Amino acid sequence: MSAHDQRAQPIGVFDSGVGGLTVLRALQLELPAEDFLYLGDTARLPYGTKSPQTVVRYALAAADVLVRRGVKALVVACNTASAAALPAMRERHAPLPIIGVVEPGAQAAVAASRSGHIAVIGTEATVRGGAYQAAITRLRPGAVVRAMACQVFVALAEEGWIDGAVARDAAQRYLVPLFALNGKGDIASDTLVLGCTHFPLLLPIIRQSVGTAVNIVDSAATTARAVRERLEAQALLREPGPSGRGIGSLRFLATDGVARFAAIGGGFLGVAIAPGEVELLDI
Amino acid sequence: MSAHDQRAQPIGVFDSGVGGLTVLRALQLELPAEDFLYLGDTARLPYGTKSPQTVVRYALAAADVLVRRGVKALVVACNTASAAALPAMRERHAPLPIIGVVEPGAQAAVAASRSGHIAVIGTEATVRGGAYQAAITRLRPGAVVRAMACQVFVALAEEGWIDGAVARDAAQRYLVPLFALNGKGDIASDTLVLGCTHFPLLLPIIRQSVGTAVNIVDSAATTARAVRERLEAQALLREPGPSGRGIGSLRFLATDGVARFAAIGGGFLGVAIAPGEVELLDI
Repeated sequence: MSAHDQRAQPIGVFDSGVGGLTVLRALQLELPAEDFLYLGDTARLPYGTKSPQTVVRYALAAADVLVRRGVKALVVACNTASAAALPAMRERHAPLPIIGVVEPGAQAAVAASRSGHIAVIGTEATVRGGAYQAAITRLRPGAVVRAMACQVFVALAEEGWIDGAVARDAAQRYLVPLFALNGKGDIASDTLVLGCTHFPLLLPIIRQSVGTAVNIVDSAATTARAVRERLEAQALLREPGPSGRGIGSLRFLATDGVARFAAIGGGFLGVAIAPGEVELLDI
Repeated sequence: MSAHDQRAQPIGVFDSGVGGLTVLRALQLELPAEDFLYLGDTARLPYGTKSPQTVVRYALAAADVLVRRGVKALVVACNTASAAALPAMRERHAPLPIIGVVEPGAQAAVAASRSGHIAVIGTEATVRGGAYQAAITRLRPGAVVRAMACQVFVALAEEGWIDGAVARDAAQRYLVPLFALNGKGDIASDTLVLGCTHFPLLLPIIRQSVGTAVNIVDSAATTARAVRERLEAQALLREPGPSGRGIGSLRFLATDGVARFAAIGGGFLGVAIAPGEVELLDI
């Protein structure tokens, strides 16, 4: 395939469900001329409470599907899969560019933090695996990372309970201890990483809980910039050109429940998704 | 195999995860001399947000495992699987006694309700499938059933947030509309069915929200009695006999995350589970 042909191929975006649509939204803003093929592995979500071995197996199966459909690059929009499965996916599909969300999220956090005291919230699997903790201290040795699994946030985002008393109380219950000072000389985190794609929906509530002095970063925008850089470096970028190509296309695959995917996904993508736009795929 | 040999076989109990342990607890109280083999399909939970086709596929695979291990009866402790997959499981494994939780739950509700106005809460899949609604109106034609999916309750039970402000607010947000009167002449439900095995953990909060006048029923105790009746009818019951057999054994299989299964499962079973007691099983 010539480089020109390859440039015209879509970018694959993979997540365990609908959460990665917040990353897709950022990708479309950053790379408006690109076509995207999004795969939500809704039959086997959530990944966030599963073991690393199982997450790797599922992520490899999902990557195989997208590679067979001819994507020119693959974005792993799921924090859990990024944390557990990126090396295995890269090995299997080299030299395909495969970009996760953890490394860009860690970069954003390190850039935003003055003190080097950084808090991370994510799913159980992401926090347990320690990928954010490792990525942050790799970029800034000596950084102090506190991480907390916030599983109830996932359910609240999916239920659409992103404001009101339940979300407010849940944010307090998770975040007040996370930012509490433990004894004299302790320093509170000045930066909070939203290490799960569901959490940007809860941003107003999270902001209210941690106050205005804390920098809140998520991976979506930095991941989109990382994807642009990789595509540019490999001459795979599709720019809006003199031919006047406008906004690229979005296509959706889900492994189960296309109606639910469309109904809930709209809230994550920021625009409505019609059930007819989602193709059911058995993997 | 002689009837005597068959009596000595364990009873299989199947759930998508740890929730069915509330049913196992009731079974052990009702049938103390029996051995139980519990399978939690933790690699593919939750079933409650998946399509009926997928739930049937997963349930059949789980039943195959337990049948190969020689169970004398199978209890489907998962409301979602009971609602979607019982006919398919019974067809595949006839004449094995297979007992679900929906029918016993519906019987308990009909027995408890005076007015015939009954509320049901469960997972998305259970409510969408309408199995409780159908079972209740089959037992009491003319019954008025209102059902509400309460997905956040599932996350709260798994997180152990079974009291406090978050659980209290969530109960209010789900249950106040469910019991509200819609216009003149409307009659509030006098009975509430906990149509998900996770929900008994939230009973104090649910009780607080609906008040003392509402009967709250769950399937666990009635399912255990239904199992006893089936085993008696088929001469498969194992009673504590003159030989002095005491409490039967419990064994656990999980398809992923045995440590998490043990840690969270203890809260559902009512006694601690050691990780070493849980066997990892790939299906």
